[in-house]
Amino acid sequence: MDDALVIFTPSGKRAHVAKGTTVLQAARQMGVDLDSVCGGRGICSKCQVSVGQGEFAKHGVTVSAEALSPVNAVEERYERVRGLKPGRRLGCQACIQGDVVLDVPPESQVHKQVIRKSASERVMQMDPAVRVYLVDVPEPDMHEPLGDFQRLAKALEDGFGVTGLQADLPVLSKLQPVLRKGNWQVTAAVWQGDAAQAPRLVATFAGLREAPLYGLAIDLGSTTIAGHLVSLTDGSVLASSGLMNPQIRFGEDLMSRVSYVMMNPGGDVEMTSVVREGLNNLAKALAEEAGVATAEIVETVVVCNPVMHHLLLGIDPVELGQAPFALATSEAITLPARDLGLDLAAGAQCYLLPLIAGHVGADAAAVALSEAPETKDELSLIVDVGTNAEILLGNKARVLACSSPTGPAFEGAQISSGQRAAPGAIERIRIDPVTKEPRFRVIGSEVWSDEEGFADAIATTGVTGICGSGIIEAVAEMRIAGLVDPSGLIGSSEQTGTPRSMPTGRTHEYVIYDATHEGGPRITVTQGDIRAIQLAKSALYAGARLLMDELGVDHLDRVVLAGAFGAHISPLHAMVLGMIPDCEIGQVTSAGNAAGTGARMALCSVAARRSIEAQVKRIHKIETAIEPRFQEHFVAANAIPHATADFPHLATLVTLPAVSFNVAGGGDGAGRRRRRG
Amino acid sequence: MDDALVIFTPSGKRAHVAKGTTVLQAARQMGVDLDSVCGGRGICSKCQVSVGQGEFAKHGVTVSAEALSPVNAVEERYERVRGLKPGRRLGCQACIQGDVVLDVPPESQVHKQVIRKSASERVMQMDPAVRVYLVDVPEPDMHEPLGDFQRLAKALEDGFGVTGLQADLPVLSKLQPVLRKGNWQVTAAVWQGDAAQAPRLVATFAGLREAPLYGLAIDLGSTTIAGHLVSLTDGSVLASSGLMNPQIRFGEDLMSRVSYVMMNPGGDVEMTSVVREGLNNLAKALAEEAGVATAEIVETVVVCNPVMHHLLLGIDPVELGQAPFALATSEAITLPARDLGLDLAAGAQCYLLPLIAGHVGADAAAVALSEAPETKDELSLIVDVGTNAEILLGNKARVLACSSPTGPAFEGAQISSGQRAAPGAIERIRIDPVTKEPRFRVIGSEVWSDEEGFADAIATTGVTGICGSGIIEAVAEMRIAGLVDPSGLIGSSEQTGTPRSMPTGRTHEYVIYDATHEGGPRITVTQGDIRAIQLAKSALYAGARLLMDELGVDHLDRVVLAGAFGAHISPLHAMVLGMIPDCEIGQVTSAGNAAGTGARMALCSVAARRSIEAQVKRIHKIETAIEPRFQEHFVAANAIPHATADFPHLATLVTLPAVSFNVAGGGDGAGRRRRRG
Repeated sequence: MDDALVIFTPSGKRAHVAKGTTVLQAARQMGVDLDSVCGGRGICSKCQVSVGQGEFAKHGVTVSAEALSPVNAVEERYERVRGLKPGRRLGCQACIQGDVVLDVPPESQVHKQVIRKSASERVMQMDPAVRVYLVDVPEPDMHEPLGDFQRLAKALEDGFGVTGLQADLPVLSKLQPVLRKGNWQVTAAVWQGDAAQAPRLVATFAGLREAPLYGLAIDLGSTTIAGHLVSLTDGSVLASSGLMNPQIRFGEDLMSRVSYVMMNPGGDVEMTSVVREGLNNLAKALAEEAGVATAEIVETVVVCNPVMHHLLLGIDPVELGQAPFALATSEAITLPARDLGLDLAAGAQCYLLPLIAGHVGADAAAVALSEAPETKDELSLIVDVGTNAEILLGNKARVLACSSPTGPAFEGAQISSGQRAAPGAIERIRIDPVTKEPRFRVIGSEVWSDEEGFADAIATTGVTGICGSGIIEAVAEMRIAGLVDPSGLIGSSEQTGTPRSMPTGRTHEYVIYDATHEGGPRITVTQGDIRAIQLAKSALYAGARLLMDELGVDHLDRVVLAGAFGAHISPLHAMVLGMIPDCEIGQVTSAGNAAGTGARMALCSVAARRSIEAQVKRIHKIETAIEPRFQEHFVAANAIPHATADFPHLATLVTLPAVSFNVAGGGDGAGRRRRRG
Repeated sequence: MDDALVIFTPSGKRAHVAKGTTVLQAARQMGVDLDSVCGGRGICSKCQVSVGQGEFAKHGVTVSAEALSPVNAVEERYERVRGLKPGRRLGCQACIQGDVVLDVPPESQVHKQVIRKSASERVMQMDPAVRVYLVDVPEPDMHEPLGDFQRLAKALEDGFGVTGLQADLPVLSKLQPVLRKGNWQVTAAVWQGDAAQAPRLVATFAGLREAPLYGLAIDLGSTTIAGHLVSLTDGSVLASSGLMNPQIRFGEDLMSRVSYVMMNPGGDVEMTSVVREGLNNLAKALAEEAGVATAEIVETVVVCNPVMHHLLLGIDPVELGQAPFALATSEAITLPARDLGLDLAAGAQCYLLPLIAGHVGADAAAVALSEAPETKDELSLIVDVGTNAEILLGNKARVLACSSPTGPAFEGAQISSGQRAAPGAIERIRIDPVTKEPRFRVIGSEVWSDEEGFADAIATTGVTGICGSGIIEAVAEMRIAGLVDPSGLIGSSEQTGTPRSMPTGRTHEYVIYDATHEGGPRITVTQGDIRAIQLAKSALYAGARLLMDELGVDHLDRVVLAGAFGAHISPLHAMVLGMIPDCEIGQVTSAGNAAGTGARMALCSVAARRSIEAQVKRIHKIETAIEPRFQEHFVAANAIPHATADFPHLATLVTLPAVSFNVAGGGDGAGRRRRRG
């Protein structure tokens, strides 16, 4: 009999193949996911398999010792030079001689399932847009004067079936020296991120490149830019870093940046330039941290809100500042990274996720990709808290989206003692309801301020300010301790019974920490801080309620707090503030940096890109700016929390003191936030 | 009966269509070439037709007066506002009501056949890569927040069947203001130059644009850059201009520029920068001359030799300076013009014709496109004379190509009194064989120097030097008049009998014009000039002979002299010099600037691009640098002409004096040209 039964695990695919077929050929015939970069020449070792012996009765196969051809010279050389794990064979060399069960180890699978112990412990599906091929390019022939690129393209087509290869000038201009340095052997990185577009050569490396290629996942926020340097082999994060968005000097929130453009013709060009410079700096820092070259970064994925999106692309965002908030372009975009001024691999591509609406960006799309509410039976409210909050509500039946202009207060900006989340910033705070004394913890230390060793623990960082999650806890704790009344007014020391309530102008502030006697800072929560938080939380709450109205529900199964900041919010304190609609507190969870996770998923997987592109078309968009009910919810949600009856779950957790510090004629600086537009 | 017979002329297509069908719909159903830019809304008037009445018996059709629906309100308005030629109807408005013969006038045909009275009186086939569409874009809708670009793309798909539209950032970034300025009506210029690539939006104009779009055909030579600004509606040339290639300061010929790069790392970047700047200056000058904006230039086609090609693209040409003369890329390239630093329409594309070989460029491909030797029975030798000569030889059976390094002497460079072809340059010269006196004519004047009125005729230009065609005539006339012997030596005044043979150092020069007494120039032909011309003509002849050897022929049916310079060469004088192999003199013709014509053909026609891309693959390439026979022919061809026996046709035209000025020990500065590589 000339055929043999071959079973591949873990896929379980089985078929009869002609004896003498190599394992790699058999895998390709059977559609089994077995990698090969060198085209079956025993060089890359990506096609390793293990033979099952004896224990495969469940498959009904008897595997004889001669099921595969003996180890050949190529494998012996590979074993000698580089070593093979015990029991491993090179699939391109071993020929099938009898019935056999073959296991494809994870590192030999093209579409790897890699479980990363990252913040979100996410299973990363690996089908990156850029794949590598080891190619032997025929040397030039004066009688057949095809260009070097054409001979490379032909070798890629003949060896790997990559047809219609294209290359941009920066790649073409580097090709000749690389081919000669590698003595006509080259590792070609080819982008194939969209079946509707031609494969593109994005980078070439002389000879066989064994190291992985890298990608950059960027979450470009109005205030901060976070980046992850990711291995495109297994999705692992090699370095993560962040920086402040340098556009902040043109305006803290999005609308003030749009105003800047309206007031300063050409201002968009300035902002485009600084944000691109910021991304380059981030890429450089990440590459340095991971010990790789930026030229090894072959793709980047960026998620951001629509204004950042347009400014990054060099599109004047002025239309996004006024109804009808028309996007210049809404669909996902793939473009050369160098067109954004990014200095990565010569032909590196940049993928931007689709925008959902004029105020709901690619960052929200990334959250939708990461959290996938459309796959769940329960009704999820997903809130990505940043300078703008993006809100998704839905389940298998329907998903809605909107954004809400919370302003930067939740990020520690516009707060008197506010700062970004960095060592020294107060991130946790508790206030004793009886003594009204605070205790707190700063980023970079595990020791609370009332515990022994605190002074030592903060010796290097000091206590420098309050970050976003800290200010939420502070205001909520002040409310729980009766230092603040439901309207948001801070009581005087007479009213609250603590000298920490200090008058300042016509209002009061609560002193958390005062080291002025030793030249240190004085950290307080002012009446203005409370007002800023009230405006921000009202906007967030109103957006969530608007979506619930649209869906006709008054109950949530779960709340997911996304965003690097959302990861640190205490659900109890968020509910005391009335930031989010009522929900069983155990069902309020953090998704970490879901937008960043979505960006990484898109970076690692072409399938993920197609999935979110399709899903964004199905999401129902709500524009808060033109919904009168948004304004109603916003105004009604000013109190802390705005109406206890709306928070039945909260009542089971904490009793809020029924204080009232309203004083006639006492202007407290409160004001209605001007809406955008 | 619900059908009617419709016959379109001049195509002769006939079919039955349902009564009530508009003429435009019928044309589309029947595949008749009837233009429409506005999508059938009676705005653009591109779809005009005339009705044949009574005289169409040959078609067997009786055309009744009611064959088309009566003139409707839209047509009445159009006639009132803009006017229609008598008998014309708008095809998008007129409905077919009975059997009818309809004539599509030339201006309503998409693929126009336009005969231009240009230098080459070429029939231009019009199917340009960029077409315009008048599109009404739906206004933005906050509840369906598709981007402006996506709504434009959808309108183009729905109205005109243009699917998968793409746009680069510079176009996207300008879209929003244009749409608003045009009140949501826009003329979209869409590039569709390659079926394998997605259509690209290259420019948008608010509202209906009535003016044509423009293209730029550029012949980028080592010494000169010539450009034509062309209407993409009818192929007419609106402006032509040229400038010196600013790279000349890095080296006069190609090999000295390659050497410059080898000696000066980064020198290629300098040269890339200056040539791109030169092209931009040329584009600006042409646009200004024609009174159009560079932003209205939506495509450019560039033809050039391989070294210029690589330098333009930013590819180090160092591999082209040594065997095996490997091209980085050889196939035709389409890329955004801005990637070459060209400041044209935001999304303007640049098409570069394919290269034939390491020394035979896209300029030779353009000549092959223009002259099409592969379509002829006769054996043609086509020579494009520039700093490098590209040579094609062939007929229907086979076409060969090579290049020959003639150097810049034929362009007036390296000639003591040489200059580029400009007013004041001597372009024609005759020497009386008896008196040895010269008479000549300069560019910009029709009067010969021995005719009355010469002084007036040259009053503004003066006599400034000798251009390329002038130096060829001068040397040939000197040979005919016996002032120069077959070896190229200039005789002394004793030997020649004219005081115009003046000693200079150890050799002699012939004085053509001397105005030093009035502060003017002194124009002579020196021994060095003769040597430079001998080297150049030997190289050209040797290349042609090499191709004839390869094809196994010793006889030519015709010789075509291409190049702006070739247009001015006198065939007789070229044969006296032995520049070209023997041929019947009536069969030596000029094709004018054939490379420029080929560039214009490619600019006007996508079909022309596909045709030359296919043809270049079939052309057989000969590399002169590695053919020992080239060197043999080169050495043997030094004499003027090298052996009269090889020029039987020449002998019937002129008798060359059997002089000999060889003087023992008289070093004359002659030397063998160093070959490249």
